[in-house]
Amino acid sequence: MPKTDRPTAAPSQRSAVEPFHAMDVLARANRMRAAGVDVISLAVGQPFAPAPKAAVKATRRFLEHGRVAYTDALGRTDLRQRLSRHYAEHYGCEVPVERIAVTTGSSAGFNLAFLAAFDVGDRIAIAAPGYPAYRNIIRALGLIPVEIEVDASEGYVLHADHLAASHAKTPLQGVLVASPANPTGTVTPEAELERLIAFAEDAGIRFISDEIYHNLTYAKSEVTALSFSHAPIVVNSFSKFYCMTGWRIGWMVLPPELVRPAERIGQSLYISAPELSQIAAMAALDAADDLVAVREGYVRNRAFLIEHLPKLGFRDIAPIDGGFYAYATVPDDAGDSAVFAASILDDCGVAITPGIDFDLRRGHRTVRLSYACDHASLVEAVRRMEARPNR
Amino acid sequence: MPKTDRPTAAPSQRSAVEPFHAMDVLARANRMRAAGVDVISLAVGQPFAPAPKAAVKATRRFLEHGRVAYTDALGRTDLRQRLSRHYAEHYGCEVPVERIAVTTGSSAGFNLAFLAAFDVGDRIAIAAPGYPAYRNIIRALGLIPVEIEVDASEGYVLHADHLAASHAKTPLQGVLVASPANPTGTVTPEAELERLIAFAEDAGIRFISDEIYHNLTYAKSEVTALSFSHAPIVVNSFSKFYCMTGWRIGWMVLPPELVRPAERIGQSLYISAPELSQIAAMAALDAADDLVAVREGYVRNRAFLIEHLPKLGFRDIAPIDGGFYAYATVPDDAGDSAVFAASILDDCGVAITPGIDFDLRRGHRTVRLSYACDHASLVEAVRRMEARPNR
Repeated sequence: MPKTDRPTAAPSQRSAVEPFHAMDVLARANRMRAAGVDVISLAVGQPFAPAPKAAVKATRRFLEHGRVAYTDALGRTDLRQRLSRHYAEHYGCEVPVERIAVTTGSSAGFNLAFLAAFDVGDRIAIAAPGYPAYRNIIRALGLIPVEIEVDASEGYVLHADHLAASHAKTPLQGVLVASPANPTGTVTPEAELERLIAFAEDAGIRFISDEIYHNLTYAKSEVTALSFSHAPIVVNSFSKFYCMTGWRIGWMVLPPELVRPAERIGQSLYISAPELSQIAAMAALDAADDLVAVREGYVRNRAFLIEHLPKLGFRDIAPIDGGFYAYATVPDDAGDSAVFAASILDDCGVAITPGIDFDLRRGHRTVRLSYACDHASLVEAVRRMEARPNR
Repeated sequence: MPKTDRPTAAPSQRSAVEPFHAMDVLARANRMRAAGVDVISLAVGQPFAPAPKAAVKATRRFLEHGRVAYTDALGRTDLRQRLSRHYAEHYGCEVPVERIAVTTGSSAGFNLAFLAAFDVGDRIAIAAPGYPAYRNIIRALGLIPVEIEVDASEGYVLHADHLAASHAKTPLQGVLVASPANPTGTVTPEAELERLIAFAEDAGIRFISDEIYHNLTYAKSEVTALSFSHAPIVVNSFSKFYCMTGWRIGWMVLPPELVRPAERIGQSLYISAPELSQIAAMAALDAADDLVAVREGYVRNRAFLIEHLPKLGFRDIAPIDGGFYAYATVPDDAGDSAVFAASILDDCGVAITPGIDFDLRRGHRTVRLSYACDHASLVEAVRRMEARPNR
């Protein structure tokens, strides 16, 4: 006896965040595939390679006894210990186990970072263009995203001067910097990262360092924010370099005073990260051989795109120093980039992401292409775009 | 060159939520086990049985090709379709696929429900005693938990009259009712559930129905909130009846106007639920034989506890009509229940949860015992408590 004629309350105002357009494109591409269309997706950051063989093997072995249970809210101790060793071996940086929290992907890492560090009304600086989930999570949690526009002319680097200018205008409580950055591939130079962190600490601004594209730098070297200070919150993930998106597993490093607040919130908000994924992640950290081979594929894809994007009429191509995205202005005659992306999907069966995901004000002329796909698919996607009838 | 001498910002005020004491007890029990102590945990709702064999088998098969990827934010279509059929078969209730969202456990379901339906400052009624994560998530999101105390004398049922009285005092925007309830095992009678939902709709209060202990009722029948109206948000999970806690997989049913808001927030806050767990969940829905056998174990455990708890001096034992918890007042000479629980862990190696998790005001005299363990462990735990030296 449903009573659908009764009035129901409206959605919350805070749920009126922008959609993550890339996910909408993914959903549409999945529907087209289900209908038999041969779609090549350059829309989301989904590595073409499966999880490392060792990770899959460890998972299958763990499944033999079938007991998959809640873990401690901060994660399995063996994985936290292994991550601590990772900082020592990979960065030469000492990070005690106690400060490492295993999270349900970097998504949970950002959410816990924001909740542990900020209260309703706090202002968090982020770069535009930038990963849309930052802005959306910040808004949904009652915080205020302060978008600082960075430009192609400066390689899309957010500088300490930008931060200082914004903070002088209206004080900030936090800043989030991704290096390598999504969608631009920008790698913040080491000296600039140090300046940013020093400025933030002096000003009492909490620094959050998104390091999920670490290990995927091509032109410049990378450094963790933890090299400069214990104060930053570092968010990382097994999704990108480790090819484990759908496993939803990542980690964060917290300053000592935020460990217990993050644990308390995590206990209620997540209980724990999926245990099978924790088992797989542990093995993935030792699977360098598989992963280096995958990265070589990105190097090849990157070179191919750097050669072909200009020929297709794309302009202002972002640095592509890291990650696996190309961010560029659409060809002059392409019109609005959302319309352009939709017609590329219709005409060529190639899914790309409109720039408004990353830059609300200026993104109507840009798109992001992920080159995390296999090389043959990238070549075919470019061929289809070149052969596009309306071009 | 860490600069630890620099000032760092304090944790947020909203992270000052209560810990989920059961998770702290679990972490302590895990440390004791790692040190070689034989601990029996009655602390968390962790079914003794592994995931259904069919679920494990489906996961292993899926892993053969190793490709585990992001899914649509609302979940794999096949699983959403299967859940729609579940409502038809199990409840005789028509729920269109479009209104079903797969979530990263019920934890994500609650978070998405609160974010999609409520804005900062909104007031949400919950029963006390109740599941602590409700109160903690509500607080962390800038909402106000309005705890309505329910009593052993009324079988801990939250009535429409309670809701009306609270709403008349200060208007509510939402109410969350769990049936069967954690920690009390209370099953809301069908007529009362209908009254609650009707009152909420008339008053413009969003009704959230926590149905994660469905299929685990022993004395009374259970009914979904969707039998009465399309307006409630229903949250459910594979953790309890389906024995899949550590897989972190659940689902929710949304009223039509909240589907897109929940999808938008989910895209940024979760991206998607873990894909392997979605595959496993799909198979678990067809594994009735395994699961009925597990439930028979709970029936036996429940009878054992109902017999022995009074002999151990526990009083005011809650109904235990559903779920797998016993909630009771500690023996007269036991003092504060948190101290009592800590000494039971030290003296007997038996982990139980102090009542302050569930009832901040009155929980210092109560504890929750989970009987989701295997029967031999429960018998041994009771034997150890009976033999406790300080008793």
